[in-house]
Amino acid sequence: MRIVGLKQSDGAVLVGALNDDGTEITVITDLDTFWSAPDAHLASEPAGPTLATAAVELVPPVLPSARVVCVGLNYQDHVNEGSFRDETLPEFPTLFARWPTSLSVGGAEIPIPSGEDGLDWEGEVMAWVGATLVDATPEEALAAVVGYSTFNDITSRRAQKLTSQWIIGKNGDHSGPVGPMVPATEVGDLRYGLRLETRVNGEVVQHSSTAEMIYGVGETLAHISKTFTINRGDLLATGTPSGVGYARTPPWLLQPGDVVEVEIERLGILTNHIVDNTHRHPPVDAARIENQEIQ
Amino acid sequence: MRIVGLKQSDGAVLVGALNDDGTEITVITDLDTFWSAPDAHLASEPAGPTLATAAVELVPPVLPSARVVCVGLNYQDHVNEGSFRDETLPEFPTLFARWPTSLSVGGAEIPIPSGEDGLDWEGEVMAWVGATLVDATPEEALAAVVGYSTFNDITSRRAQKLTSQWIIGKNGDHSGPVGPMVPATEVGDLRYGLRLETRVNGEVVQHSSTAEMIYGVGETLAHISKTFTINRGDLLATGTPSGVGYARTPPWLLQPGDVVEVEIERLGILTNHIVDNTHRHPPVDAARIENQEIQ
Repeated sequence: MRIVGLKQSDGAVLVGALNDDGTEITVITDLDTFWSAPDAHLASEPAGPTLATAAVELVPPVLPSARVVCVGLNYQDHVNEGSFRDETLPEFPTLFARWPTSLSVGGAEIPIPSGEDGLDWEGEVMAWVGATLVDATPEEALAAVVGYSTFNDITSRRAQKLTSQWIIGKNGDHSGPVGPMVPATEVGDLRYGLRLETRVNGEVVQHSSTAEMIYGVGETLAHISKTFTINRGDLLATGTPSGVGYARTPPWLLQPGDVVEVEIERLGILTNHIVDNTHRHPPVDAARIENQEIQ
Repeated sequence: MRIVGLKQSDGAVLVGALNDDGTEITVITDLDTFWSAPDAHLASEPAGPTLATAAVELVPPVLPSARVVCVGLNYQDHVNEGSFRDETLPEFPTLFARWPTSLSVGGAEIPIPSGEDGLDWEGEVMAWVGATLVDATPEEALAAVVGYSTFNDITSRRAQKLTSQWIIGKNGDHSGPVGPMVPATEVGDLRYGLRLETRVNGEVVQHSSTAEMIYGVGETLAHISKTFTINRGDLLATGTPSGVGYARTPPWLLQPGDVVEVEIERLGILTNHIVDNTHRHPPVDAARIENQEIQ
């Protein structure tokens, strides 16, 4: 089963299941109801209406209040290629934040922000949490994961490296495309190794296995749950292997017109297109102008 | 005018205005409608029902999808007292992330997470953005700020300092109490200086003026808007002055039973109570158990 979000004309989001060839979606329920009991909904056959995929707007099936916690350095070969190669790896995972507003879907166009020479790719696995976790053990935390998906943690490297803290460069508009969620029961344990590959215009740039992860999903979620309560619907991006663009000689960054794909065994292929910064400039903020006229 | 959020029994949030003595709230509208046109709503007299403050659950009037961007090092005296004192201050503000789930209100009890020796205080001003900003100038960005409030960026120092990235220690449960929003028109420009004071059990621990900020609100928002689009309802926490607990000799951290107050000229007093980690342990996750029974 592949779980997706469908945005309705009033902005509300439904959760549905793609059929085998991806042409149709059967609605499961609304977003809040789905995340109030994700296990139950994944265990039942979707019973809502069936819609043509081409006729709906796909969005990530992510609650607006969800946290997207991301592991920064989780594959030793990626640690070795990057800015932290001369530092001792900490005992705990290095974690940074995405706001869910930065998430998008396969097919989305991703703009290069102002002042960037391009965008960098980071293919990785996203884990979706389906239970509340407080001071959990790694085993409890892993059991709470209800699904996995492809993810591309597309990064504005200049903004990321301006100061010690990375988060602005990790939250560019549409910069976190996430694929359909596949139930954990169909995926198994990442530690046994899913093949992960990232391609730019068809050329392989990252090739690894999730068996290479330093910090496991259960361990990382358990660690986080000591400081804050993890809620149903929260997400964990599990980190990228080596082969990112900025660490190459010479550096290689995504340019307008480039196509970037993340393919992960059992999770599918996530394809996105890079566009230039003019795509960030929306029509004039109509509501704001209207307000000023009211005043 | 002081703007607050009211949580209804179905979980929906209304926005209202406190009366002068704080005993009553007049409803303005629902949260989404308020943030679709905040200028217009702040310029009008609230016209909804009036409720007793004691009879409602107060919450921050913050959209679940809002981003809370926080400035890490924005007062030179705080830079000088902390871990970054020997590093060159970057040209750009050091920014980190809170998810709005971590926000709470005055009066909230704030638990000390597992593994922490206590919690640290950081009194500061929160700025509330009321317009969409893409590649904005500092002047456009400052004009988009519709209000300010008190904020206490309560920090789990151990979790913050475990790795290079601070965000886990900045997102403890209820750890971001935020006071009522006061319209920007009643506050003026922070650069002219609002007195800011933090007290622990009545003792003054931070005393400064917003005139001491290194990076202005307009400059910081303009900088952010180069990388991602700032939305109506997004928040900027403007950083704390010197006097935090961990930098003292010996360190001084908040313990269960302590009362911490942030008082800022024109914005009011924000009071919170510290409790121990047992307050993080909720009843067993009923929905999860129910799901398992369904299966």
